[in-house]
This record gives sequence, structure tokens and C-alpha cells, in this order.
Amino acid sequence: MAQLIALYKTPADAAAFDAYYYGTHVPLAKTVPGLRSYHVSTGPVAGGGGPSGVHLVAMLQFDSLAAIQAALGSPAGAATAADLANFAQAGVDLLMFDTKEV
Amino acid sequence: MAQLIALYKTPADAAAFDAYYYGTHVPLAKTVPGLRSYHVSTGPVAGGGGPSGVHLVAMLQFDSLAAIQAALGSPAGAATAADLANFAQAGVDLLMFDTKEV
Repeated sequence: MAQLIALYKTPADAAAFDAYYYGTHVPLAKTVPGLRSYHVSTGPVAGGGGPSGVHLVAMLQFDSLAAIQAALGSPAGAATAADLANFAQAGVDLLMFDTKEV
Repeated sequence: MAQLIALYKTPADAAAFDAYYYGTHVPLAKTVPGLRSYHVSTGPVAGGGGPSGVHLVAMLQFDSLAAIQAALGSPAGAATAADLANFAQAGVDLLMFDTKEV
């Protein structure tokens, strides 16, 4: 399997972020091809030594890193990436990788 | 469910990091109470616009954020945290949060 993780930094207006994220971005992201499951953080994101500076973590599971790259290269993936500019002005870090259980 | 994510920054010696991580740290981390599953990245960790600066991502699943905090507060959790100094000198960011599927 593989994961795409999005780390959304704390926005100026968390309520507005959440409304847009769940109302618009999640439904859009769910249209990308190859998405197997989609989990998000609920409540605060704690760091190792206190607040993390991260407001929300999204974890999108695909079959492989190649499937993630194909998803991002699709029209739905391009639309989802372009939508970040509408609500993630505080910044978002993306990480993509294949995974295994240990 | 809940996730503890560890983002290990790129070490000076990746081969030495991997040998210590899989040979010593993973077996130690598996002793923490309440751990439900443990996945790691394999191969490169891509970022949104190129290299991520992250060498390895670990994702440890627990029943709840409270269970993660209890695990970190246990003797096995303290030993696992102390072990980071033995191989994660380049830095590690920890994120802990409850999750839901969307």
C-alpha cells in the first residue's frame, strides 16, 4: 500500500478552514482515481513537546506510490491540488510513500 | 482510532540509520502497550514539489489519543523515546491525533 499525507498548518480562521475542507475539498479529493481510503485527524494534533503547529492531518491510502502519482496527474488530481489555494493559505506539507507493516 | 506519526529527517548515514531502526528501535517500539499496528514508509518519501527531506515515516496505530499518551507514559514508551537519541540525531517530528474516516 501507499500513503499520501497532507499536513495542514494552523490557519488564521480554523472554523472557516474546516467548513471549506469538509464541504468542498473532501468531496473533490474523493473523486481522484485509485483512492482506497481517506482518514483525517479529529481534534487537536499534538506534537512531541507541545502544540504541533498542524491543524489537520489527512491520510489518503492508495495501492502504490505509482498510483498516487497517477492520481495527482489526473484531471481530478489537478483540480484537487488547485483547490488548496482556496483554503490552505497557511501552508500544507505533502508526503507520499509506499508502506509496509513491520 | 488514533495515529502517532514519526517523521525522521534525512540522516547523515542512511544505511546505519536503517540498520539501527529495524534492528533495535522497531522491536523496542513494538513493546509499548496498546499498539494496534505499525507501518513504515519504504523507499523514498516524496514531497509535494520534490524531495521531502524526510527519510522515513512511521505510522503507529492505537485505539485513541489517550491510549497513545498512556503508551508514551509507560516504561516501554519512555525507553522507546529515549532510544531516539541513539539514531535520530538528524531530528524527528512527532504528531499524535485521533482519526476518523471521511
